[in-house]
Amino acid sequence: MEDVTSVRFELQQADAETARQFLEREHPADAAGILADLEAAELWELLRLVDIDRQADIFGYLPGALQLSLSHIIPRSEFAALVTEMDSDERADLFNRMDEAEQQVLLRALARAEREDIRRLASHAESTAGSIMTTDYAVLTPELTVNAAIERLRRAAPEIETMNRAWVVDADRRLIGSIRLQQLILAAANARIGDIMQERTYAVHVGDDQEAAAQQLARYDVVALPVVDDEGRLVGIITHDDAMDVLTQEATEDFHKSGTVGALPVNVREATIPLLYRKRVGWLVLLVFANIFSGAGIAYFEETIAAHMALLFFLPLLIASAGNAGAQASTLMVRALATGDVVMKDWGHMLGREALVAAALGLTMALAVSGIGVLRGGPDIATVVALTMVAVVLTGSLVGMSLPFLFSRLDMDPATASGPLVTSVADIAGVIIYFSIATAILFNV
Amino acid sequence: MEDVTSVRFELQQADAETARQFLEREHPADAAGILADLEAAELWELLRLVDIDRQADIFGYLPGALQLSLSHIIPRSEFAALVTEMDSDERADLFNRMDEAEQQVLLRALARAEREDIRRLASHAESTAGSIMTTDYAVLTPELTVNAAIERLRRAAPEIETMNRAWVVDADRRLIGSIRLQQLILAAANARIGDIMQERTYAVHVGDDQEAAAQQLARYDVVALPVVDDEGRLVGIITHDDAMDVLTQEATEDFHKSGTVGALPVNVREATIPLLYRKRVGWLVLLVFANIFSGAGIAYFEETIAAHMALLFFLPLLIASAGNAGAQASTLMVRALATGDVVMKDWGHMLGREALVAAALGLTMALAVSGIGVLRGGPDIATVVALTMVAVVLTGSLVGMSLPFLFSRLDMDPATASGPLVTSVADIAGVIIYFSIATAILFNV
Repeated sequence: MEDVTSVRFELQQADAETARQFLEREHPADAAGILADLEAAELWELLRLVDIDRQADIFGYLPGALQLSLSHIIPRSEFAALVTEMDSDERADLFNRMDEAEQQVLLRALARAEREDIRRLASHAESTAGSIMTTDYAVLTPELTVNAAIERLRRAAPEIETMNRAWVVDADRRLIGSIRLQQLILAAANARIGDIMQERTYAVHVGDDQEAAAQQLARYDVVALPVVDDEGRLVGIITHDDAMDVLTQEATEDFHKSGTVGALPVNVREATIPLLYRKRVGWLVLLVFANIFSGAGIAYFEETIAAHMALLFFLPLLIASAGNAGAQASTLMVRALATGDVVMKDWGHMLGREALVAAALGLTMALAVSGIGVLRGGPDIATVVALTMVAVVLTGSLVGMSLPFLFSRLDMDPATASGPLVTSVADIAGVIIYFSIATAILFNV
Repeated sequence: MEDVTSVRFELQQADAETARQFLEREHPADAAGILADLEAAELWELLRLVDIDRQADIFGYLPGALQLSLSHIIPRSEFAALVTEMDSDERADLFNRMDEAEQQVLLRALARAEREDIRRLASHAESTAGSIMTTDYAVLTPELTVNAAIERLRRAAPEIETMNRAWVVDADRRLIGSIRLQQLILAAANARIGDIMQERTYAVHVGDDQEAAAQQLARYDVVALPVVDDEGRLVGIITHDDAMDVLTQEATEDFHKSGTVGALPVNVREATIPLLYRKRVGWLVLLVFANIFSGAGIAYFEETIAAHMALLFFLPLLIASAGNAGAQASTLMVRALATGDVVMKDWGHMLGREALVAAALGLTMALAVSGIGVLRGGPDIATVVALTMVAVVLTGSLVGMSLPFLFSRLDMDPATASGPLVTSVADIAGVIIYFSIATAILFNV
């Protein structure tokens, strides 16, 4: 794609017909990307050029805040028509972003079917499978013949985004199977759906966590996953594109948490300065107080330090090494727990392996510093530094590996056992270990 | 799913027919999960019970190392049959993991079509779109009628995993459009494909980066993305499930890099101790040497410290704060650059905002420590500590924000501008800033 800014400029200069053709031709995601930096009023001037289907497609790809601004500008009846054409899950998201008065105005402008659909979808708690499902899917019943089923899908087609797979339900709308469109066209015209459908279906519950649902979809390599309620009744489907968005968004959240940044509701480019401040200040101040313990540790050993100022030279190096080894171990565990590669009961096994890896790392790093130790402080200081290095790398690594499991056990997000938290804990341990070893060795020689 | 270990045990005790039914009924991903911890020989005893299609499905979900072990055990002709049934992309991955002698043995056992397909797919460089594409897709030509097209798809069906969308090519196999199966069944029987197909197709080049290709698939919310060569000829498609795997795998890699762990070719549970050691030792040792600068900084200011030992109390707290603020900023940028939310030219804009956020954070944290400063060291020390806090949080944040952009500009992966690297740089700056301010203020009072 060409440079977005220049395309946007050309589009605004173009006559209505040229602009319309452009917006009809581009992928709605690209069109939305080009329009997204315009003022709402300018945007609506362009958007109204295209037909209502296209309007809804492009509108669905615009950032949430811009959708809201547009909702205040677009005439009520045209807005209701646009919302009616939107995908049901995107429509429910928009609805959830509106305040109550706006919601009431919108609901009154919609036909009953859409009104009920929005109410139903918007009622699901955030981060549940229900909150990301759509109600645009094809349903069949088992007694239909293949011909009748194809006829039914033909009639339903204009309303349904995708019918690669149709879901088969019984008289109580309980999910009993599914069938792919390609199976239908391959089957005999008078075969019955109930006889040729795939009976084993992999459904998630409407209250399941959205990340778990997305991971299940990824695990089974399916395009869509059905969502059922307590009675096993089909209430929606989760599609592969929404699942992919969830996985990306959860990875971003984990990434941010691992750097002690709270979950951002928008991307970092759209985040305001006060929002960024709020999402960052909490951990920073908390860690300031955690680090007072390191300071107190140093103060406690003031005598040892005053007698051997050369020890200070190695202080940053040793506590940073403890923190870095710990950050590595926690990073590995946080991600492995998030992807499901490692589960709670692996703790013992992983801890044993980590001890071996950390011991090898500690020895290597001790070797790396002992030369400098001899040069800067003599053999005694070198011994202290080398011993400390092995001890702090081991301690840091085992803490870094264990905190994510501990947080997980306490039902907290393991990603909170972030690098900076592990580093602070490792720092405190590092100070105490370093000067304890120094005091023991240097005051005995 | 029930506990994997007990299911596996039951499966090994079960009679052949029960085991076969179980393996036919479970999703291949689940069956593979249950079988994955068995010895290759035991696994083959169970796998041979099911028909060849199912064998290939389950085999495709097994870890790469286990696939290789099995390839040495399964009789040659049965193995060739199994490989023939595998999805083309998984087959090429397996082939790439074999050594040359094994590759030759396998190629000789295969029919010509599969042999050429493997050779073609396996030739693409790692991490390119070509390396994750499959050659199992449906192709149509524009002069076909809808009826003829459906007939052609019917005949091709047994070989093709998915035909939700068929790709339309001209006489030179150049990609000229696509059509969805549901459009086909809705269209008039004698309409021509060339007239009803969707002309605008979004293809990637076979040499494009796999992550960029996966992101494009996610952006356009499509189930599959066609891959073309230099002449625009269709050579494969990337499917949504492989794209999702790529995005998850790249997020894991970035996550690990941000914690200074090198990219692991397997998941952390399967990684051997020497592998983990190798992937972690490099940065740790490098950072040891980086931290020598911090030590040298402290040594340089030994006089100031000896005269005011109370300064040491605040040392860990101040340098940790610089590092933590920097880690936050770099985490935000690394992820935003990876997801495309922020691009190179946003640097200036982001830096300006970061300065404001960091100033506000620094002031808050200065406030938090100044009380302790007065208590532990008196008003002069408190002034030094508060001023230093603002200066180091600003410095750390701006370094943390800039390093990912700098790495990106140097064509290095921005994720390498990890927390630990930023922390080390911030530490060095912190030591120098702290003791410079202290020397300036305390020796003038």
